[in-house]
Amino acid sequence: MSGPGRPGEEALIARYFAPLAGEGAEGLRDDAASLAPTPGHDLVVTTDAIVAGMHFFPDDPPASIARKALGVNLSDIAAKGADPRGFLLTLALPSDWTEAWLAGFAEGLGEASRALGCPLLGGDTVRTDGPLLIGVTAFGEVPSGGIVRRQTARPGDLICVSGTIGDAALGLALRLDPGAAWATALSDGERAHLADRYLHPRPRTALAGLLRRHATAAMDVSDGLVGDLGKMLGGGTTARVDARRIPHSSAARHAVMVNEGLIETILCGGDDYELIFCIPEADWPAIEAEACVLGVDITMIGQVADGQVAPEFIDLSGNARGFARRAFEHF
Amino acid sequence: MSGPGRPGEEALIARYFAPLAGEGAEGLRDDAASLAPTPGHDLVVTTDAIVAGMHFFPDDPPASIARKALGVNLSDIAAKGADPRGFLLTLALPSDWTEAWLAGFAEGLGEASRALGCPLLGGDTVRTDGPLLIGVTAFGEVPSGGIVRRQTARPGDLICVSGTIGDAALGLALRLDPGAAWATALSDGERAHLADRYLHPRPRTALAGLLRRHATAAMDVSDGLVGDLGKMLGGGTTARVDARRIPHSSAARHAVMVNEGLIETILCGGDDYELIFCIPEADWPAIEAEACVLGVDITMIGQVADGQVAPEFIDLSGNARGFARRAFEHF
Repeated sequence: MSGPGRPGEEALIARYFAPLAGEGAEGLRDDAASLAPTPGHDLVVTTDAIVAGMHFFPDDPPASIARKALGVNLSDIAAKGADPRGFLLTLALPSDWTEAWLAGFAEGLGEASRALGCPLLGGDTVRTDGPLLIGVTAFGEVPSGGIVRRQTARPGDLICVSGTIGDAALGLALRLDPGAAWATALSDGERAHLADRYLHPRPRTALAGLLRRHATAAMDVSDGLVGDLGKMLGGGTTARVDARRIPHSSAARHAVMVNEGLIETILCGGDDYELIFCIPEADWPAIEAEACVLGVDITMIGQVADGQVAPEFIDLSGNARGFARRAFEHF
Repeated sequence: MSGPGRPGEEALIARYFAPLAGEGAEGLRDDAASLAPTPGHDLVVTTDAIVAGMHFFPDDPPASIARKALGVNLSDIAAKGADPRGFLLTLALPSDWTEAWLAGFAEGLGEASRALGCPLLGGDTVRTDGPLLIGVTAFGEVPSGGIVRRQTARPGDLICVSGTIGDAALGLALRLDPGAAWATALSDGERAHLADRYLHPRPRTALAGLLRRHATAAMDVSDGLVGDLGKMLGGGTTARVDARRIPHSSAARHAVMVNEGLIETILCGGDDYELIFCIPEADWPAIEAEACVLGVDITMIGQVADGQVAPEFIDLSGNARGFARRAFEHF
């Protein structure tokens, strides 16, 4: 893998990744790290890989790719009510990698790692004849037994989401067809907002404590609100969602004004990395106040109900509506 | 990714992988697992990926590929003195995957997981336009602070290895050139032994407790004895190794009798997945007895010494010898 002017695996690790190593990682000079949760806590573990041409564009800036690889994993950690503790990195590099690319990748990874309080604990670098693949295993921690599960909502619970829904899906659509009529109708600032939301997921780590204290169930919205809500319910519950309440950015609202068919992209497209969670109805005032203090917008969009049917979405005219495409499949 | 007659990601997980799920994995119906070490213990975490065409042959039996992916990770866990606790799986599938392949893979993974006492805790399945990649993150546990490190040997310590060295490298050479003169000189049984050692790493999990109690430093031999010994030493230590003591199988000895140049392949080739470790000289009799009870052969091959130079290998004629190829680079 090392070639003319390129370092071998050990030199590459020492130069670019050892500076990101956290406690227990032994400066990445060992094949394994040690990790103990704070006494009275459990570790929460998750793994997600992103592949060039599937989850990002090969010509995305390397720092952005690094940020996405870590961000999508810490989004899962936050959704389980856990605080970040560290991560492992698997880097499958195609033969045309360059040191400049790797330097940019490591810089972006280091920035995200520091910002999210999540040090590098180890990893593996392999060569592939195929597209670049970045795998991350992320660790978080919660008080013992406190992990917030996905399918544990109860009838009557309110359904909330963080941030705004659909920006990233529009950002992807914009990237695939920048000349679309709706895209050219947006302002430069609106286009930049949507593009950025696709490129840079913002894991809602600030909400982990709120979820631990209040949520009866939670997950991150990675494959579209409609499909992910369906995955969160199950075992005898359904939901009634007021689509008029679902929060959208002004850029997304403008896009739908221009082309109302985009509401399907917004509600069923992937890559939001916002949180969707259920709470006891009585907790809403306290949660709204807490989220305000944390500086994260949360919005109540519906309510869990008894039943085995698919969640019902009430549209702008007050009627229940269906969706042609239930969930975005990265797979 | 789902195609005619093939399940989507969720169905695939439910059918093939949910049966392997351990405690804390929530039947793989959540995006994360919870994991707590036994009180008074640390978790040990490691990650290694294997790629078709690099670490295994694309036409290897899927059950063997699964066994290798888990085995190479549990070899690292054992080398750190840790007992297996569980693992996460990343599967990057090329577009031509079949259900028959996946069924064989899951069956082999389940067998290895049960045999090694290491349940599946979660994972991710992605599509790739490139070669099949299998990433594993493995978890083990050791009494708090008890992880056995790599570069902590002291001058005077004895250097030991488990099992036999070089079989897997010969198995790979055999696979690449089955008509080589040395290969055709071996018996069918000898060829089968070498081929099997390349295909099926046997992580030395049985030795984890012995390493915890006695080893001053340890790692697994994955990139060749010569190179890995060099990685284990460092910070002012070197070693003198008696190459005549290095244990080889009868098949490997036969191969070297036919072609003495193969000793370089044996000592510098990869994929042994045996353990190399250092112990206080006084502990040797106790360790030999313990290993005998555990049914694993261990052999003392040399001694750690003061110095910054490369480890010295004393050959059959009593002279120090060098190696053209220092370490096998999978990368």
